[in-house]
Amino acid sequence: MDLARLRQEVCYVNQMLLRSGLVSMHSGNASGLDRTSGRLVIKPSGVDYEQLRPEDLVEVDLTTGQAVGGQFRPSVDLPHHLFLYRHLPDIGAVIHTHSPYATAFAAVGRPIPMCLTAMADQFGAEIPCTPYVDNQEDHIGQAILKYRNQAPAILLGNHGVFVWGPTPREALKSAVMLEEIAKTVFFAMQLGQPQLLPPQEVAKWFIRYHTTYGQQKPLES
Amino acid sequence: MDLARLRQEVCYVNQMLLRSGLVSMHSGNASGLDRTSGRLVIKPSGVDYEQLRPEDLVEVDLTTGQAVGGQFRPSVDLPHHLFLYRHLPDIGAVIHTHSPYATAFAAVGRPIPMCLTAMADQFGAEIPCTPYVDNQEDHIGQAILKYRNQAPAILLGNHGVFVWGPTPREALKSAVMLEEIAKTVFFAMQLGQPQLLPPQEVAKWFIRYHTTYGQQKPLES
Amino acid sequence: MDLARLRQEVCYVNQMLLRSGLVSMHSGNASGLDRTSGRLVIKPSGVDYEQLRPEDLVEVDLTTGQAVGGQFRPSVDLPHHLFLYRHLPDIGAVIHTHSPYATAFAAVGRPIPMCLTAMADQFGAEIPCTPYVDNQEDHIGQAILKYRNQAPAILLGNHGVFVWGPTPREALKSAVMLEEIAKTVFFAMQLGQPQLLPPQEVAKWFIRYHTTYGQQKPLES
Amino acid sequence: MDLARLRQEVCYVNQMLLRSGLVSMHSGNASGLDRTSGRLVIKPSGVDYEQLRPEDLVEVDLTTGQAVGGQFRPSVDLPHHLFLYRHLPDIGAVIHTHSPYATAFAAVGRPIPMCLTAMADQFGAEIPCTPYVDNQEDHIGQAILKYRNQAPAILLGNHGVFVWGPTPREALKSAVMLEEIAKTVFFAMQLGQPQLLPPQEVAKWFIRYHTTYGQQKPLES
Repeated sequence: MDLARLRQEVCYVNQMLLRSGLVSMHSGNASGLDRTSGRLVIKPSGVDYEQLRPEDLVEVDLTTGQAVGGQFRPSVDLPHHLFLYRHLPDIGAVIHTHSPYATAFAAVGRPIPMCLTAMADQFGAEIPCTPYVDNQEDHIGQAILKYRNQAPAILLGNHGVFVWGPTPREALKSAVMLEEIAKTVFFAMQLGQPQLLPPQEVAKWFIRYHTTYGQQKPLES
Repeated sequence: MDLARLRQEVCYVNQMLLRSGLVSMHSGNASGLDRTSGRLVIKPSGVDYEQLRPEDLVEVDLTTGQAVGGQFRPSVDLPHHLFLYRHLPDIGAVIHTHSPYATAFAAVGRPIPMCLTAMADQFGAEIPCTPYVDNQEDHIGQAILKYRNQAPAILLGNHGVFVWGPTPREALKSAVMLEEIAKTVFFAMQLGQPQLLPPQEVAKWFIRYHTTYGQQKPLES
Repeated sequence: MDLARLRQEVCYVNQMLLRSGLVSMHSGNASGLDRTSGRLVIKPSGVDYEQLRPEDLVEVDLTTGQAVGGQFRPSVDLPHHLFLYRHLPDIGAVIHTHSPYATAFAAVGRPIPMCLTAMADQFGAEIPCTPYVDNQEDHIGQAILKYRNQAPAILLGNHGVFVWGPTPREALKSAVMLEEIAKTVFFAMQLGQPQLLPPQEVAKWFIRYHTTYGQQKPLES
Repeated sequence: MDLARLRQEVCYVNQMLLRSGLVSMHSGNASGLDRTSGRLVIKPSGVDYEQLRPEDLVEVDLTTGQAVGGQFRPSVDLPHHLFLYRHLPDIGAVIHTHSPYATAFAAVGRPIPMCLTAMADQFGAEIPCTPYVDNQEDHIGQAILKYRNQAPAILLGNHGVFVWGPTPREALKSAVMLEEIAKTVFFAMQLGQPQLLPPQEVAKWFIRYHTTYGQQKPLES
């Protein structure tokens, strides 16, 4: 994905965070990385989602971590995005939100238990939760690396959510589904004790979803 | 309903799943069947609801279960739709969602108890919940047949919702009302013990709703 | 208010029930009465709110209870509207919904306790709840008369909400505020024991709201 | 900010209260103050947010508390706005709502505990709650002064929310974030005991947010 196309996609995904109810005011940010040029684009700090245009995104050099041209400052969460791109070589997008149902689990320091087939489909594992870490140095990035499992999503204790994926749209899907799942599991936990899915059942859903779902494979092959 | 009209109706109903808040991203699907031609149309897999056009729906032969022309793959849930059409000869539409309040009941393996007149109106019975079943062979369809009652709706344990009806719009109404009722009963269960309606009271509402409601009968007859 | 204007107002209020989230599909209805002509207009049964036009409303004679011309059948809840207009001579509008937070209180047969100044402003009293009654004869209307207090709103056990007022817009305001208050009190009851407002405090808010609020009195008087 | 611009900003902020879900019908109000002219503008009483135009706002003299020209009466909450402007010399905007999650904490007389980094960012402290006070004389204003902490927001027992800030948009941000935080903490309290952030951790987030966030400082300086 070239940088012009990446700006459009990352702009769209930032706007969808608002439209999907994952953020309020300026409370989240999405970025995308073009590994060929070594440049990422990220939401500028404190700018309204609705007015955001592709050219407003801040371009940042992955190696130096410095903004390249442009008139805006990057999100204050840029260091965490950089850390993830540098340590997870397969990812091309990072999203950070404080979506309320998922963040409620983070406020009590608990993972989201694996009890829904939709969760098995999308994530293939429970959503883990790190202990609280502060915003100094690489503490957030280190906690994510230490506590993540195979799911491309994690809760940060007392804080919120990070998700990642190969493209901005795939990371958006994880961010939206994470909140939808957090909401459903929250409701279930008010009704009683959700029944956990054992790993071999989780695998059945995850494998089906990641091999036969969607339009990705040519129809005639 | 001919196939061209059916495509319009099924497209509309799929889009209404999103607008009614029953699905997120691509997490549900609706189909409709024309029993004269033996063809159903169903949402393609992984396609956005907002961009969906009638011609994008996948036409499938009820007998063979194979897609007939078109450029898209059908929903991965096609086998469950086919199973229901083959075993319930009176139905013309099937909808599958993971709408969150209803799915919360499914996550704890509990039916939605019959405690509201709106539930008596629309469904005439509690909404049952199957045990968890996996996605292999006919397990989902068999569980639906085994555990359903007179209501055209059921919860699948740890999974979500299936509803059906004579037309796509009637199935949509059941899907929307099921989530509205699940929400209301969920709230009631947080406040205390909902009072159950006895069967003879349920019948009063169901019969009124299904004989005197709406505009279906000619006014001058 | 003449009948043409009344049709516009009642149509607007029916549409606002949907836009305000008080109804789903066709699950509520509003009517308005012109006492000069002795005619009321009410939502037709089973018609979508979004497509509703003023001329689609069903005109009904208050004395005979019969529809006067028009192509549509009236709401199946017409008998309860008629009963209230006949027994409450000061009212000019009636609304029936199953708005979910208020209906949750009805499902457990409990009033909404008087614990918010906004509730004192609008209603001046707790919102009472009738026992369950069926849909035969005048049972619903009789229960409303028997259990109502000074508030122009009541919960029907296992069923939903009736509100009334001098005009359709004032009844709409009560319907919207009732659900907003039910929601807030529901949340409060999950957090702990809401502090009740004593009657002399309720009076301070009710009197202020009903004497100094709004633009109803000429500014220069 | 001159008065013409202030009218536009205060009108926008009042409309955003509705669009952000903080108010229903007419249940809140925003004002802004121009300290140069000693005039504030405030929402008129009982007027719909959607139809509100900048010229409809009521201009009020800060010293006399009297409306200056115009055709509308001011919000009945004007005395509380005046009191805050007179006692908090640094503020230029006041907002009052009954947003439901925050008001639920007020209904049980409890502060919103400091357990989220987003709360540390925006407010730097827990959100305190006053005891119930009536609407006579300066009781509301006095309670706010007595119980507030460093956060530009407070809960009024059994009542609702007041927030303030240097400009209407900054007060709006506090009002929106307060409800978002109240919602998230409410959910967390249903899941378990939220982990409190100690003061030295709160300071890390508050200082970062109020020194490095946004676009306020010139990029080349």
